[in-house]
Amino acid sequence: MNTVEKWGLFEVSAKGKTDGNPFTDYTIHGVFRGKNETVEADGFYDGDGIYRVRFMPSFTGAYTYEITGTFSGETLTGEFTVTPPTEGNHGPVRVANTYHFAYEDGTPYYSVGTTCYVWTHQPEAVRRQTLEELSKGYFNKIRFCIFPKHYIHNFRDPETFPYEGTPVDNSNLSEETFTYHVDFTGNDWDFTRFNPEHFRRIETCIAELRGLGIEADLIIMHPYDRWGFSQMSREADDLYWQYVVARFSAFRNVWWSLANEYDLLRAKTLEDWERYAAILCEKDPYRHLRSIHNCIAFYDYTRPWITHCSMQRQDLYRHVEYTDDFRTRYGKPVVWDEIAYEGNIDMGWGNISGQELVRRFWEASMRGGYAGHGETFVNPEDILWWSHGGKLHGESPERIRFLHTILCQTPGLGLKRGEGSFDETVAVPESPMMQGYEIHYYGFGRPSFRDFQKTPGEHWHAEVIDTWNMTVTDAGVYSGRFRIALPGREYMAIRLTRLPEST
Amino acid sequence: MNTVEKWGLFEVSAKGKTDGNPFTDYTIHGVFRGKNETVEADGFYDGDGIYRVRFMPSFTGAYTYEITGTFSGETLTGEFTVTPPTEGNHGPVRVANTYHFAYEDGTPYYSVGTTCYVWTHQPEAVRRQTLEELSKGYFNKIRFCIFPKHYIHNFRDPETFPYEGTPVDNSNLSEETFTYHVDFTGNDWDFTRFNPEHFRRIETCIAELRGLGIEADLIIMHPYDRWGFSQMSREADDLYWQYVVARFSAFRNVWWSLANEYDLLRAKTLEDWERYAAILCEKDPYRHLRSIHNCIAFYDYTRPWITHCSMQRQDLYRHVEYTDDFRTRYGKPVVWDEIAYEGNIDMGWGNISGQELVRRFWEASMRGGYAGHGETFVNPEDILWWSHGGKLHGESPERIRFLHTILCQTPGLGLKRGEGSFDETVAVPESPMMQGYEIHYYGFGRPSFRDFQKTPGEHWHAEVIDTWNMTVTDAGVYSGRFRIALPGREYMAIRLTRLPEST
Repeated sequence: MNTVEKWGLFEVSAKGKTDGNPFTDYTIHGVFRGKNETVEADGFYDGDGIYRVRFMPSFTGAYTYEITGTFSGETLTGEFTVTPPTEGNHGPVRVANTYHFAYEDGTPYYSVGTTCYVWTHQPEAVRRQTLEELSKGYFNKIRFCIFPKHYIHNFRDPETFPYEGTPVDNSNLSEETFTYHVDFTGNDWDFTRFNPEHFRRIETCIAELRGLGIEADLIIMHPYDRWGFSQMSREADDLYWQYVVARFSAFRNVWWSLANEYDLLRAKTLEDWERYAAILCEKDPYRHLRSIHNCIAFYDYTRPWITHCSMQRQDLYRHVEYTDDFRTRYGKPVVWDEIAYEGNIDMGWGNISGQELVRRFWEASMRGGYAGHGETFVNPEDILWWSHGGKLHGESPERIRFLHTILCQTPGLGLKRGEGSFDETVAVPESPMMQGYEIHYYGFGRPSFRDFQKTPGEHWHAEVIDTWNMTVTDAGVYSGRFRIALPGREYMAIRLTRLPEST
Repeated sequence: MNTVEKWGLFEVSAKGKTDGNPFTDYTIHGVFRGKNETVEADGFYDGDGIYRVRFMPSFTGAYTYEITGTFSGETLTGEFTVTPPTEGNHGPVRVANTYHFAYEDGTPYYSVGTTCYVWTHQPEAVRRQTLEELSKGYFNKIRFCIFPKHYIHNFRDPETFPYEGTPVDNSNLSEETFTYHVDFTGNDWDFTRFNPEHFRRIETCIAELRGLGIEADLIIMHPYDRWGFSQMSREADDLYWQYVVARFSAFRNVWWSLANEYDLLRAKTLEDWERYAAILCEKDPYRHLRSIHNCIAFYDYTRPWITHCSMQRQDLYRHVEYTDDFRTRYGKPVVWDEIAYEGNIDMGWGNISGQELVRRFWEASMRGGYAGHGETFVNPEDILWWSHGGKLHGESPERIRFLHTILCQTPGLGLKRGEGSFDETVAVPESPMMQGYEIHYYGFGRPSFRDFQKTPGEHWHAEVIDTWNMTVTDAGVYSGRFRIALPGREYMAIRLTRLPEST
């Protein structure tokens, strides 16, 4: 008897027709039935005469399946059993209380993301190194692209291409002559024939991330292109979207990012983005999280298909400090997926300090939002984490992991900005049922002490959090008016927890 | 024969009537005539039967004076000679080209200010220490108050009070019980009788600053008050303004700041501020610079009597970065007199790092504005530079002096923001006649290099400026496209100067 764990991936594969173009000429469709759900899903052609349909069960117990389509003259049927989830499998991430995320089993999910745009397209050794870094638990989400990337530091061809055909010659490319605007001549692609190996590589990576408990925030389209993948026809786009959804939906750790810097994809209109979103909403049976990421102008995050904001900062100096405003404006989780990267490249978006990046993480988190990491250090191999993955060189990752441990201690689910003075960011639990917990964060301020005034009779436990040196120090229990000493350094916080009334 | 240097202070004093209240019952007025100017000025009563009239000549040569008024039955007349200015005397500071300042002799004045609100009211030893620090040339402007100050760290009585009478008892005051809102009971003042000693102290300080080449940015009113000086009657206010103008106008280094945080003076209306401004405009024959400083809302800096903006930041995160916007909006010099202080007190306005304060100075200056320093370090004596003066403890003053040396190298008069990419602040000369000079400032960015593209045939001299370590390093001469290496640290700048065409 076949078994699969709840929120695992169940796959049915079958030989099918190979004449004509199997990617476009034939269909395959599955229906999966259990006591509590019936799920329909499109399958896909995986090359070599093999068709596949995938399914992610959301309940335990006995299931049946029925596979139909023009790919074959027969209907395939079968049974399988869904077992309870194994340790570390909490299901897909959902929006749980307007502003925050939880896994489907109810476990809070506090997003601490990173970005390695084309790590899956790199040589095996680099991919292994990336996974080794990711295994250290710094991040629980990673953004990356399906298509290869053409950009500064990104002129090497990817290991595989998504279509059959031949790419434009890249031997004359250089940082000096790089330009966004290329005419795509010299490419020869068949946009009706996918290269299954390309997608299998990505699937392998998604599965490895799943094993590490990391969400795969898939960037389906992007503008960094010399091959024409950003300017395909409407028909080719739709074929691509359907193929992507059919292949990746059944991975529980998938998030859909319609695009990186959608506003730089000049060939696409708002109508296009809405059409892609409609495909997603129709074809993804699991309602994975959906968003779209800006360069300059935010997409309209009030659109009903958008589950959360996926933002890039719009100003060099004030950005994550708007987190609470954007929560109010959009009524959705606010995820800052691009707030400049730790590093030392020439570009301002890639050369802030680890201190400043960690400050931005804290500031976003204390205001009830989330932030994303990236790293761009100059190095002789020209392997930069932000694009290629590889080895981490910065100081921020372990501090981000520390922040995550603090976030996981939040009573209830999620923080929001509470009342405080002008010169601090005060975080309190999102739930009004969870009062008596406050983190006072001072950012680049360097107070030597802070005074507090609490209702007489209440007892508050004070802790000093050094967000940079990653320490939590007991500072005693207080009532009424009290003063907490601080070291007069940047990046400190004070956590106050009200003690239960003694009986 | 009496002599005084051009822009020096010429004073005529005379015995006069002492019956009644000489501060209100009698007048004294002077007319000073030279070949190029006739100046009329009110005098003032200085106690002990002495009346004085002061004059600042703006031309050299032979002058006469004529002193009249009800203070005496006689008219006093006399002659004096105005000699050329001695070294370091460049005259009063003026607005010279809409956005920038110059001394009256044409020497550019690049403002690098500081604030010691009540340094003149401190014991002699502290005053001496303040002047010793100021003699090191860190700053060329200092803001301070005529009235004493009631605020945290400021509960000690001043050495003198501005009026005859007795102050409220201060023995029960503490940081814990401090509040803005006091009812002024317990004070007993005669607001028609000044205490000349109080004003003489301030004059001595203004004169000492003049000797050091430092502008005295006098704060005439402020809200930090337990004595009632911020809530006097209209008549008392007007008497005070006239007395202040009569005593201080003839010092060439005086600037008028109508108030610090005018919007916290709840007893005063906009009409009041406009009336004080009218008194200034009428009574100050020398048209010293005039502004007014906010807590939250800016005053309307478009008012014609305002010579320059004197701003406090309105946001914790983005402030001096609006300098170029405010230049455009107000068409006047933009001076950021309060952008948080280097220090480690509990309050966010007084605990930023020296690095961050110096960054704000550079950012303001590269955008064609000016910034002001302050320092608030906790210390056992509770002597904080921001209020008391005393000793400097921070790292910013010498960096501010270094910035000043760079500003003084500007071709023409003043910088403005030039065109540049999103991730840099590029300063170019204000004058369109002075092209070929650029400072590219990277703030908290840490580029390891930057690329430039100049018109072929032009030769540009490149220098790397480390704004924190205070070095200027020759980086060579370049044409066309070139790359300048940087150390990948924060607070760096690249200066490019176009070389004259060789013949």
